Amino acid sequence: MSNLTFPLGTLSDVDRLIKHLPATNDAFRQAARARQDTLTKPPGSLGRLEDLAVFMAGWQEQEKPQLAHAQAVVLAGNHGICAQKVNPFPQEVTAQMVQNFKAGGAAINQLCKVNGVDLSVVDIELDRPTTDFTEAAAMSDQDCLDAINIGAAAVSSNSSILILGEMGIGNSTIAAALANAVFGGDATDWVGPGTGSDEDGVRRKVDVIERGLARHSSSLGNGLGILTAMGGREQAAICGAVLAARMARIPVILDGFICTASVAPLYALEPATLDHCLIGHLSTEPGHQRLLRAMGKSAILNFDMRLGEGSGAALALGILRSALACHNGMSTFADAGVASG
Amino acid sequence: MSNLTFPLGTLSDVDRLIKHLPATNDAFRQAARARQDTLTKPPGSLGRLEDLAVFMAGWQEQEKPQLAHAQAVVLAGNHGICAQKVNPFPQEVTAQMVQNFKAGGAAINQLCKVNGVDLSVVDIELDRPTTDFTEAAAMSDQDCLDAINIGAAAVSSNSSILILGEMGIGNSTIAAALANAVFGGDATDWVGPGTGSDEDGVRRKVDVIERGLARHSSSLGNGLGILTAMGGREQAAICGAVLAARMARIPVILDGFICTASVAPLYALEPATLDHCLIGHLSTEPGHQRLLRAMGKSAILNFDMRLGEGSGAALALGILRSALACHNGMSTFADAGVASG
Repeated sequence: MSNLTFPLGTLSDVDRLIKHLPATNDAFRQAARARQDTLTKPPGSLGRLEDLAVFMAGWQEQEKPQLAHAQAVVLAGNHGICAQKVNPFPQEVTAQMVQNFKAGGAAINQLCKVNGVDLSVVDIELDRPTTDFTEAAAMSDQDCLDAINIGAAAVSSNSSILILGEMGIGNSTIAAALANAVFGGDATDWVGPGTGSDEDGVRRKVDVIERGLARHSSSLGNGLGILTAMGGREQAAICGAVLAARMARIPVILDGFICTASVAPLYALEPATLDHCLIGHLSTEPGHQRLLRAMGKSAILNFDMRLGEGSGAALALGILRSALACHNGMSTFADAGVASG
Repeated sequence: MSNLTFPLGTLSDVDRLIKHLPATNDAFRQAARARQDTLTKPPGSLGRLEDLAVFMAGWQEQEKPQLAHAQAVVLAGNHGICAQKVNPFPQEVTAQMVQNFKAGGAAINQLCKVNGVDLSVVDIELDRPTTDFTEAAAMSDQDCLDAINIGAAAVSSNSSILILGEMGIGNSTIAAALANAVFGGDATDWVGPGTGSDEDGVRRKVDVIERGLARHSSSLGNGLGILTAMGGREQAAICGAVLAARMARIPVILDGFICTASVAPLYALEPATLDHCLIGHLSTEPGHQRLLRAMGKSAILNFDMRLGEGSGAALALGILRSALACHNGMSTFADAGVASG
């Protein structure tokens, strides 16, 4: 199994890794469900809060799962595709926002603080953007592997849950490209305004994706080919973090459209790779709903958000805290002397 | 104005009160909206979190609203309508659950603790259920007034926000009756399974509501007539708490179907009476969606919950905390040195 530990030595180690993923533990899921039915409430009346507790029990292998160490990792990268004017913000904003994360001034900082989450920020070679994918592969195999390993290394082995977010000017185009390459359809199905593109901007995004898909058609037969040809460093790092979390049985909350699209290449390799991943919120980016449907996932929250940074995932962590507080803290009918109907 | 302070001396003081309600402060709403647009994020990208911050600013009359003292009040009562077998649980469960609230074992206790809310539990004459409304008015004017004053007295004047919940075996029938009396339609539009009625139980609920509406048709011309004829003590107390909060400019989060229906009589008197009220969650009880549409409201969360106790409102408070953490704590573009596009 030595070739299944991080750092991975070659990109193809990912293919081997996903054949040996730990699965949810049904015995603990059943124990948690049985516990729910003894608590002082009509059975099922806490709705999806009950399901979240059961989900956590299965991955943590505990009837009473916990959130003692909630970790958020925000991955940041820059993208050569910005040369095609796919984003109204200058590329320097990626580094400026990373500084803002480190200084504590961004939305994700406030959301982590109020929801009890430790935040790590990992910026990956911001001064060396990926290649414009209309001209060549976005990353070399080595660049992609390095980014996967960086994402994996950012995951603390003692995390109770991992929240993933991203920052990278231009990466809504990268996300749409990955989703399109994995799930097909037209580029217009996957492209939206991102951080604020106007109609012309959206058309440019569609155009570059169509040109990228045409150029790389021979590389798009599997997930890793898609990731290197059209992905970005923070997307590869998110894949690495998701895999590292899975090997340690750490459940994950992905943020919105870009995070979900970042792991579409893993879904292409093997859909079960994402079984330990929750989706924090449904983004207003129009491709997100389509993407979730394609992956058989649904989002915890829907607040018309479109910020990224892990903001929707950190918000959802608060809901998970409430779900586990009920699951672990409520009295049973027997304890409380309440008639159970 | 002495007749506008609590305790109210007569039921008709409510009619006078609602002519002198404080309104939201548009200047503070605008200041909060302007602040949102300076924060380090694409404008509007925090979606409904931004709207929640603006809502709070208008009622608290502060550009940076706060949640220093979040208070939850759970009102409990018993209902004569239970003689008609509208609920599968014995009526003693109301008192048993009140004991469970006081002992800290219920869902609402855990949700208040994890979301930083002080919980008060107010049970109103549980050993003296209201009258079966198929036989006579559920309450006398004096009983209704007393319950309104009890609810009002439970509101702390220094609360930053008030969360309202309820407990009362049989009160999903009361709620459906109030909604039907205020908004019309058929009883089947408003009746659902509640805590677990089967098809026969649902039919009994429909039947008693139809008989109640027929018996009290002459009293249903205004909200207070509806409340006394077909309401319950905890419903009247919820109306009292909503009015007392409004006079003190304290925003309110109502829980699900039963809480929302409890204030339908206030809506009948004057829709603007509920302008300071948010709805915590959309219940699975089928009448709730219809009720919210009739009132022009939408719920913060939708988690397939149907517990009551204020559980959905306490869960929503966590979201509000996150909204204000972003609003109050984020850096502006100018402060952080981030290009604003």
